[in-house]
Amino acid sequence: MKRTSRLILSAVLLTAAFCFTEQPTSADDDVVRHIVISVSKNISIANARLTRDTATPDCPTDWSITKRVLHGGKQEGVDIIEVNNGKLTFIVIPTRGMGVLSVTMGDVRLGWDSPVKEIVHPRHVNLTSRGGLGWLEGFNEWMCRCGLESNGQTGLDKFINNVGDEAEMELTLHGKIANIPAQEVEVIVDKKPPYRIRIRGRVDEKMFYGPKLELYTEISTEPGSNEFRIADELVNVGAQPQEFQILYHSNFGRPLLEEGATIVVPAKKVTPFNDNAAKSIDTFDTYNGPTLGFIEQVYCMRLAGDKNARTTIMLQNQKKDRAVSMSWSLKELPYLTVWKNTAAEQDGYVTGLEPGTNFPYNRRVERKHGRVPKLQPGAKHRMSIDFEIHANQESVAKAATRIGQLAGDRKPELAKIPEVVDDNE
Amino acid sequence: MKRTSRLILSAVLLTAAFCFTEQPTSADDDVVRHIVISVSKNISIANARLTRDTATPDCPTDWSITKRVLHGGKQEGVDIIEVNNGKLTFIVIPTRGMGVLSVTMGDVRLGWDSPVKEIVHPRHVNLTSRGGLGWLEGFNEWMCRCGLESNGQTGLDKFINNVGDEAEMELTLHGKIANIPAQEVEVIVDKKPPYRIRIRGRVDEKMFYGPKLELYTEISTEPGSNEFRIADELVNVGAQPQEFQILYHSNFGRPLLEEGATIVVPAKKVTPFNDNAAKSIDTFDTYNGPTLGFIEQVYCMRLAGDKNARTTIMLQNQKKDRAVSMSWSLKELPYLTVWKNTAAEQDGYVTGLEPGTNFPYNRRVERKHGRVPKLQPGAKHRMSIDFEIHANQESVAKAATRIGQLAGDRKPELAKIPEVVDDNE
Amino acid sequence: MKRTSRLILSAVLLTAAFCFTEQPTSADDDVVRHIVISVSKNISIANARLTRDTATPDCPTDWSITKRVLHGGKQEGVDIIEVNNGKLTFIVIPTRGMGVLSVTMGDVRLGWDSPVKEIVHPRHVNLTSRGGLGWLEGFNEWMCRCGLESNGQTGLDKFINNVGDEAEMELTLHGKIANIPAQEVEVIVDKKPPYRIRIRGRVDEKMFYGPKLELYTEISTEPGSNEFRIADELVNVGAQPQEFQILYHSNFGRPLLEEGATIVVPAKKVTPFNDNAAKSIDTFDTYNGPTLGFIEQVYCMRLAGDKNARTTIMLQNQKKDRAVSMSWSLKELPYLTVWKNTAAEQDGYVTGLEPGTNFPYNRRVERKHGRVPKLQPGAKHRMSIDFEIHANQESVAKAATRIGQLAGDRKPELAKIPEVVDDNE
Repeated sequence: MKRTSRLILSAVLLTAAFCFTEQPTSADDDVVRHIVISVSKNISIANARLTRDTATPDCPTDWSITKRVLHGGKQEGVDIIEVNNGKLTFIVIPTRGMGVLSVTMGDVRLGWDSPVKEIVHPRHVNLTSRGGLGWLEGFNEWMCRCGLESNGQTGLDKFINNVGDEAEMELTLHGKIANIPAQEVEVIVDKKPPYRIRIRGRVDEKMFYGPKLELYTEISTEPGSNEFRIADELVNVGAQPQEFQILYHSNFGRPLLEEGATIVVPAKKVTPFNDNAAKSIDTFDTYNGPTLGFIEQVYCMRLAGDKNARTTIMLQNQKKDRAVSMSWSLKELPYLTVWKNTAAEQDGYVTGLEPGTNFPYNRRVERKHGRVPKLQPGAKHRMSIDFEIHANQESVAKAATRIGQLAGDRKPELAKIPEVVDDNE
Repeated sequence: MKRTSRLILSAVLLTAAFCFTEQPTSADDDVVRHIVISVSKNISIANARLTRDTATPDCPTDWSITKRVLHGGKQEGVDIIEVNNGKLTFIVIPTRGMGVLSVTMGDVRLGWDSPVKEIVHPRHVNLTSRGGLGWLEGFNEWMCRCGLESNGQTGLDKFINNVGDEAEMELTLHGKIANIPAQEVEVIVDKKPPYRIRIRGRVDEKMFYGPKLELYTEISTEPGSNEFRIADELVNVGAQPQEFQILYHSNFGRPLLEEGATIVVPAKKVTPFNDNAAKSIDTFDTYNGPTLGFIEQVYCMRLAGDKNARTTIMLQNQKKDRAVSMSWSLKELPYLTVWKNTAAEQDGYVTGLEPGTNFPYNRRVERKHGRVPKLQPGAKHRMSIDFEIHANQESVAKAATRIGQLAGDRKPELAKIPEVVDDNE
Repeated sequence: MKRTSRLILSAVLLTAAFCFTEQPTSADDDVVRHIVISVSKNISIANARLTRDTATPDCPTDWSITKRVLHGGKQEGVDIIEVNNGKLTFIVIPTRGMGVLSVTMGDVRLGWDSPVKEIVHPRHVNLTSRGGLGWLEGFNEWMCRCGLESNGQTGLDKFINNVGDEAEMELTLHGKIANIPAQEVEVIVDKKPPYRIRIRGRVDEKMFYGPKLELYTEISTEPGSNEFRIADELVNVGAQPQEFQILYHSNFGRPLLEEGATIVVPAKKVTPFNDNAAKSIDTFDTYNGPTLGFIEQVYCMRLAGDKNARTTIMLQNQKKDRAVSMSWSLKELPYLTVWKNTAAEQDGYVTGLEPGTNFPYNRRVERKHGRVPKLQPGAKHRMSIDFEIHANQESVAKAATRIGQLAGDRKPELAKIPEVVDDNE
């Protein structure tokens, strides 16, 4: 039971044949659409399966979507959706804010081996515990979103309380969105080539006298492809301007992370998060093997983009024959945080590549530095990231060249002093 | 999905015909009685329906009681009971302390449009979060009870800890009772005219080294009536005297609340809750339309009653042709709090009419002012409120006259200085 | 509904005949083995029953194991396993860290009447509430474990946070383990005499940047026996040395606890926990009847053991014809805490006999006094306690003699000053 994804595979064996028994919930001629979860329609489908044969019989690649419910311990009642596009497989967790547990393609896995083995139901997570670090009790996804009202470190920040006064509250690590179950989830498959498969879910971070944010998430892929896309839209449905923060906390362990693995980033500037990271700034792009007692090192990066502000980064293994690349617009997600946590395997050997609207300091700090954007009433903020899995040297090299062109001749400026010197400023 | 009650209606369409399959659980000749939830008998009925035809075939008015479970997001597993008396419909939420989501009669709705759209399961509410304001993440009922150990503002108050010492704890907003699932719930219908329909639920607020309070709630109505009653009994089952606080947080949005809507109250004295409310004391009984950025205004009221200390208040729309009136005994609930929150629609356009044992300052403050009653061991405190929906001018005018008689010639004394000047006193 | 165990009995009546429908999950020739809950295999069996007739037809004593799910209020979804060995019956609660609700044999019950009547699902327990005393909202078991990262009083202690810094956190009363649902649970019955029946469950207290502890619990008995055993093994699966604390909080009310009931302990030294306990040090081994407003008195004890460091204690009723004895190794659990809480019946008339790795002061204090052990990576700590129910004077007297031999001639030293004088040291 080393890998969480194996846990799921054994679960698959237990499920009998089953399918979406109801007719597709849309009469749209172009797509097959099934509701999986719906607060507004009072629906929650426990187990279901949709396949190429029934949905897109003409598609040359066999694919499937499997919905199931997890059992036991703290994962009792957790919904998961597994998408197999015929080449790669990913598992989405509606119960945990539409996070993605893992992506696998052949011998490449995007994901990591957290000491947390269950897929923890948010009802077992108390974000305020352990001085605001309760989030760490459920953290084991390949990709989870951090946000939406705040996405960074714990600590005091101001807010407007129920009687309209400015008050102070303790922010909890990485915010709430990864521990909110999705309100509306559906699967959508195009009936025509390239038969794109989409899992959509709306996650609400709303309260009275607080944020009224709706996050429309989508993860999609095409049958037979080694690529997939996360495309989200954040909407402020409140009547007043609303601060927001979002960070795509994408986490990688073996096989991509290993001694000698490297990141390829078109960085203009790399700044250490704190003094501990500063010590190793010169090797910011290279990874150690598992190191007992390793203390995390975090780097804040400004990246170069193309003329449309589009950028790409890559994590490659030591041999440079396996890698994942991520491409997005710096207009949508201007900052990249790289989290190096090459601790012992049992403690969590992992690195995070985290595009975001900001760096993950406490919101109080980010606000001072002008990195906390606001959404006007009714306004939307779109964000999308394209992921590609590279499974041979040629493909890896090609991506590295593309990234090199973004950086140009320029070497990144490596700061010796942390991005923010005094967290209590 | 503007109104939460619509959300429920769509759910109704999805449920097939079903009924209480077991025989009534009581041999009482006078009533039909069904257990819906029971901790002591280990029962939880997911879906069921009881109708006039099977229970009271001689009743001239068709009525029904429908039990169901909600699905999706944070409402997964929430129990609701919908009572249709042939004229009005109300929805009770056992999972949320027997609160009432909404009451509808023709074009009149008692309820409001909270930014919180789901009926949130208490397991997704952390009352201690956001500096003790976590309660606001689940707040969207027409009527929820606040209490029982405390029912007011956040802030420090003393208590006796596990080693018998006086210690301090942070009270959370409005207490716990609205986020405790009911232990024992049953539906009871009189077999003889007027065929009264009752939903009863016991909600326990108990712990070791803490309060041992049982709240027996009942909401009841007669087939064909425009009236209903909430009648509760609070029992101290501990061996020592126990402080308690209860507040009936009844919340109204459109259609009753609108620009020019007014409350009719036989107030002897009206005092602002704070400086912000003091500014508008002269228009305490009149409502604005939705106002962007409106800060809540709260008024503390002492009311006149009849010779039996029975009082009545009313909320009427601008045209005075739609209204709701509430009648109760000032011996049971001596204080009225009126909460005006005429904010923008998206932020929650709402007013609360809140009879209670006290005003909703922190318990520390209320204790100082002698407004925290105690229940002796085994003692009971009964409280009941009669609600009437008025759907034409004549009915509204009649109620206004009745309230006017309570007040007599007297105009209310309007205080300029808040009820409590220093919350930290 | 005075006794929680009665609550369960009524539940039994509601369950129809049912059995484990699948074949035993092990091909082991020597045992019958059924999985009840498994995170790794994604299994959760709601209702099942295993009996002598199907599993061990040759066993002369009829026995049964019954699995069911509880419903209503805060116990909705709680799993329980009831084992009847033909002479005694115990109820295990996988959902609450494999705690044991009660043990009954004829007119002897191990257990107590907590004001908390439901078997509370951990999702309704907020350990951080009430200044860290939230644990008390679910406390009603005969035996619950306290631990594993900490097991004592609330209050600040240091820990290593997510950025590797030493930080401070508020510990919550008695730790987390009693409110963690078990990950892997199985029932195992030997096919050959003496046909031992075992309920095993693994409970994980793990998080990223925190402890990685797995507790393998087992409670077992033989058909027809008046004895049973709790045998646990704690494993540190992290890569670094890990502090741990464990306390077996075994709680007794009537019939064993009554006015004039006594404990028989081979104490070398008895020290009061605080000044309040110090006042009554001379009667530390005798119990009062229910006393309104009684403040708990706690005693810290060092016990004598035999040449193998094995010790025994006993709680006997006033007549000395009913008792329970507990035997264990002082190498495994060197300290005994006795908690006297002879409060009024309604408030919880109870005493706790609590063998542990330490006394239940805050971990900060225990560390100073050298009572917080560490587990090396991969290391295990085994603990087992044998329980025997004595149902006649002869059996009680025999156990008393055995305990007397452990103590020898020595009278215990009774300290007048608390074990720890200043909790804030």
